[in-house]
Amino acid sequence: METPKKVKVGAQALHAMVRDMFAAAGMEAAPAGVVADVLVWANLRGVDSHGIARVPRYLEMFASGEAAARAAMETQRLRPGVLMVHAKGAPGPVALTHAVRQAMEIARETGVCWAAVRGTVHTGAIGYYTELAAREGFAVIGLVAGVPNMAYTGSSVPAVATSPVSIAMPSAAQPTPVLDMATAAIALGKIAQYKIAGKPLPEGSALDADGVPTTDAAKAETPLPMAGAKGAGLSLMLELLCGVLTGNPIVTEYHTHTPEGERHRQNATFIVADVSAFQPPDRVRAMVDATLDTLHGLPRSGADAILFPGERGASTLAARSASGIPLPMASWKKLVADAERLGVRPAALLD
Amino acid sequence: METPKKVKVGAQALHAMVRDMFAAAGMEAAPAGVVADVLVWANLRGVDSHGIARVPRYLEMFASGEAAARAAMETQRLRPGVLMVHAKGAPGPVALTHAVRQAMEIARETGVCWAAVRGTVHTGAIGYYTELAAREGFAVIGLVAGVPNMAYTGSSVPAVATSPVSIAMPSAAQPTPVLDMATAAIALGKIAQYKIAGKPLPEGSALDADGVPTTDAAKAETPLPMAGAKGAGLSLMLELLCGVLTGNPIVTEYHTHTPEGERHRQNATFIVADVSAFQPPDRVRAMVDATLDTLHGLPRSGADAILFPGERGASTLAARSASGIPLPMASWKKLVADAERLGVRPAALLD
Repeated sequence: METPKKVKVGAQALHAMVRDMFAAAGMEAAPAGVVADVLVWANLRGVDSHGIARVPRYLEMFASGEAAARAAMETQRLRPGVLMVHAKGAPGPVALTHAVRQAMEIARETGVCWAAVRGTVHTGAIGYYTELAAREGFAVIGLVAGVPNMAYTGSSVPAVATSPVSIAMPSAAQPTPVLDMATAAIALGKIAQYKIAGKPLPEGSALDADGVPTTDAAKAETPLPMAGAKGAGLSLMLELLCGVLTGNPIVTEYHTHTPEGERHRQNATFIVADVSAFQPPDRVRAMVDATLDTLHGLPRSGADAILFPGERGASTLAARSASGIPLPMASWKKLVADAERLGVRPAALLD
Repeated sequence: METPKKVKVGAQALHAMVRDMFAAAGMEAAPAGVVADVLVWANLRGVDSHGIARVPRYLEMFASGEAAARAAMETQRLRPGVLMVHAKGAPGPVALTHAVRQAMEIARETGVCWAAVRGTVHTGAIGYYTELAAREGFAVIGLVAGVPNMAYTGSSVPAVATSPVSIAMPSAAQPTPVLDMATAAIALGKIAQYKIAGKPLPEGSALDADGVPTTDAAKAETPLPMAGAKGAGLSLMLELLCGVLTGNPIVTEYHTHTPEGERHRQNATFIVADVSAFQPPDRVRAMVDATLDTLHGLPRSGADAILFPGERGASTLAARSASGIPLPMASWKKLVADAERLGVRPAALLD
């Protein structure tokens, strides 16, 4: 793969810049900081596709009205253990951070909370929210479903979304184990990287514009689901859990192919359980560590190390927190142009 | 693939035979009927690997003490929304049917219940439990984790279990959508079928006895996870959710390689939400149907039909309920031998 030219920025300086940009675009200071938290966290963890590269799109969505810089979110406690957050176009980081924090409060009482988020935009890296709750002592499942951009087994067109699933559990000495996986065989960003590198895609990754499977990255249009019918079925069930329970089904509306039906929006679900309901929390954290240690010690097959979900991201975060976040020059230039337009001073580069 | 000689048995007659066998092996009548419900359901749905072919293994486990024919199960309501079922070796169908039914009762009050099942054996097809609750108006997630029988990304040995995930939602005119997927790239039973047929396995399906990837079904020892690191990570997180929260971690114990550590056992989790907490239930069922209808109507790519999760199983169930369950002669003969040993009269064959 080609390595594009990069710049390096300190995490705090980048956070302040992004926060100030969202504030200049009309958000209040606190929620602007929350969006910056989630995006910069993704860059720190090495998930650059979900980081500050998304800022321009947020700004577009505020301008077009797809997203609301000052959303009048409403939160309803529908039952002792059930929460519904009407995001009303609030950015995903704002709606989902609110939902997961409220769910934690409820789960301290009831043991478990199912928090549904209706009508947000771009949820970012959902591992952010599940990891945040796991660190505080909760077992967490996070699910998102959005606008179709992936084939379903047998379909020739985008049918369902590359919806992610995240699961996190509290640990002690080990970093928090946090799975964050899309239901697609390949990310759209990865297809673009194969295209730039002129390499063939792995078999079963994508369909071309005619709905025929292809390994030609230049012709790939629609990612296929991971593991065939399993990924397809999982994505469909996430739409039913997230879209139908919030009364905001996306797949049905999208396939009407009206502008309103195709409008970008997402629904989400967090299931948050207080581990202290089950076992003493220190014992839970110790058992999690013991399981991760066991995994590390297993006989290996052609691998330097066995990693648990979230382990690589935690070490990338440690490194980038210390020495700065590398950003592709193109992303940085776009961010700076938007910052200057909004009257925000760009962060200083590190080297 | 070779088609082995089959016999055909009526579902009710098969159910009565299996129930009477479990009763003769020491179970009380009602739980014996529950185990028969779950196993015969799997055969009716076409999931023959989880059907009555498992009866001999249950009988062995009762004889060896791995499973308890008359388990003194204990149920604790740990918090308003949290249930723990101590199965104490009760067969999975007994412990899990109890857990999911109790969770439904709790969810009617609190909106959601997290039910943890500690120390059961052989849970059967977990779609049985999620489908049962979905039909009654609940959104359900079912998770199981057991003894390692699958590689983890980078390991040369069985590291984690081929743990299944099931998700079900209530529908109206359509059959209940119910996903029930293992986290492995291939089932052990499928490897055996490839071996019999002398066909190569798909790439990335399995490791040989030395921990090296192989497509030779005769040499395949350990299935690989589905979708690489995604399936591995998902299985690990299921162990943390099911094993750690019940205080009965299996992966850690298994890798001590003591007889006790390697003993067959499983933990399970059901998350059950009352859809009427979110939306009027008729509206939920209608939105689910609309989504499934949309899927059916999509442009297809080389497929006769687009099926939602559980759809094929529902049509197989309809056909086999009407005309009987085909069983491989070898399974049937083994079942009859066990029945005769227990003094139970075998079901009459249909043709």
